Amino acid sequence: MTVKQKLAERAAGVEGYLETCLHDRGIPARLLASMEYSLLAGGKRLRPVLTLSWARMLGGDAEAVMSFAASLECIHTYSLIHDDLPAMDDDDLRRGKPSNHKQFDEATAILAGDGLLTEAFGLMSAASIVKGLPADRVLRAIAVLAAAAGSGGMVGGQAVDMEFTGRDNVPLEELREMHAMKTGALITAACECGAILAGAKETDIENAREFGRAVGVAFQIVDDVLDVVSDTETLGKPAGSDEEMGKSTYPSLIGLDRSRELAGEYVDSAVERLAAYEGDEKDFLSALARYIVDRVS
Amino acid sequence: MTVKQKLAERAAGVEGYLETCLHDRGIPARLLASMEYSLLAGGKRLRPVLTLSWARMLGGDAEAVMSFAASLECIHTYSLIHDDLPAMDDDDLRRGKPSNHKQFDEATAILAGDGLLTEAFGLMSAASIVKGLPADRVLRAIAVLAAAAGSGGMVGGQAVDMEFTGRDNVPLEELREMHAMKTGALITAACECGAILAGAKETDIENAREFGRAVGVAFQIVDDVLDVVSDTETLGKPAGSDEEMGKSTYPSLIGLDRSRELAGEYVDSAVERLAAYEGDEKDFLSALARYIVDRVS
Repeated sequence: MTVKQKLAERAAGVEGYLETCLHDRGIPARLLASMEYSLLAGGKRLRPVLTLSWARMLGGDAEAVMSFAASLECIHTYSLIHDDLPAMDDDDLRRGKPSNHKQFDEATAILAGDGLLTEAFGLMSAASIVKGLPADRVLRAIAVLAAAAGSGGMVGGQAVDMEFTGRDNVPLEELREMHAMKTGALITAACECGAILAGAKETDIENAREFGRAVGVAFQIVDDVLDVVSDTETLGKPAGSDEEMGKSTYPSLIGLDRSRELAGEYVDSAVERLAAYEGDEKDFLSALARYIVDRVS
Repeated sequence: MTVKQKLAERAAGVEGYLETCLHDRGIPARLLASMEYSLLAGGKRLRPVLTLSWARMLGGDAEAVMSFAASLECIHTYSLIHDDLPAMDDDDLRRGKPSNHKQFDEATAILAGDGLLTEAFGLMSAASIVKGLPADRVLRAIAVLAAAAGSGGMVGGQAVDMEFTGRDNVPLEELREMHAMKTGALITAACECGAILAGAKETDIENAREFGRAVGVAFQIVDDVLDVVSDTETLGKPAGSDEEMGKSTYPSLIGLDRSRELAGEYVDSAVERLAAYEGDEKDFLSALARYIVDRVS
């Protein structure tokens, strides 16, 4: 089985959970439809898969971790809905379909995002309350994820990204810091939380975090590269939009070839963090890190 | 000391905490300014005061509960920022000042709201991680608050409210249900979480919840009444806006006199839930419930 097939298999497990996790919560029909429109629009489910895989490699109970892993997809999805809004990136297309506010309306899209973000924390708490994981582990993971997703992390990164748009020649170091917040923090937290929920040692938690950090940078570089070299149909979102919006990107600052090379270097440093482990799960995480650089969408 | 003075004194304690709780978290300057612009714009701090007071009455450590209590104000504030957006209620004025998106811009206002909501859960977890409250209590309170603030609670209520706007003669029962979600759920959770964090018995937790539920309904009825009888300067937001937007309200459905009477009945039923307790804190909560009906803004 290729890593792409294995990722798809793992994603299908997450998908099954996501399909029902918002039911029976008293969510008004139209709001629920809007939340599920985006949550169930496909996607690689990379973040929950990372959480589950790190938890499993370190001896955790993947079934008990599932609700927490799913919360990462809720947070990722809410951020896409809000980023697509007219006042933000103003994107009409997402994963090959109309973006949430085009399919519904702006107010509903704002509320669907707010709802997904809030439900995410309910799903995190369920990992202990329903699934019996130790409360102190879950609470620590909640703190990590709140910091990563919040205004010093993902939300802050989006704010800085908007300030950068149209500004000429943002220095590479500032670009890296912005991406570390906007996309890196959540990927890093996905890995770190998997280790925390498994009850792993501090050195293992650090390996998970640093693996996630390196993978997160590589992921972003490849995203920038794909925006240049891919087409809209393959991406499921408008290709070339970075250049059109005047965004500084890795290719615009250091060129395509050096960008690809740099992504490879980050993946190498991620894989080094797996040296202490063995078995199928280690092999999967290693292949997954490589796949992030080789992917085409 | 009158209850209004005592509420102001308690609010000042919350204020002191709110003034620094977002510092040293790596939040980009402009985003932080936008978050604090709304978070520190005054307000009665009713929700955190209710959490602290219920915790104290039931033997809890108010100092340890403070970060959790503050999270309720972050959630309340984010909901006001998003509700004021052009795509939502389109309000230019909030607490006598330009609303967040007028003072900053729409994108920043959306992100400030997202940031405050996310930081709220970080503050909740700090009640255990920093202040040492038992993790299982804090986790239960997080689950209660996520459900109350989420798409089956506050966010869902706002979605239903938007569907109601412009619709003629919404039945009183549907209006009550919408308000129970939109404003009642958070007030209810404020009281319930105070009891949970104090480590109270289930019967005490139920009393806190039912007290909050009744106070929440009374609070909303009085809000509707004030929108009719008060003026913009006293309210700090445009008076008469409900009628202008074609919203069904308690006064529009059952008249001003019956609305006032009904608010009084709900407060009576709230105060009944305090019968089992005694002391200063019980007296304060009782007076606070009465004050909610007698307030002018």
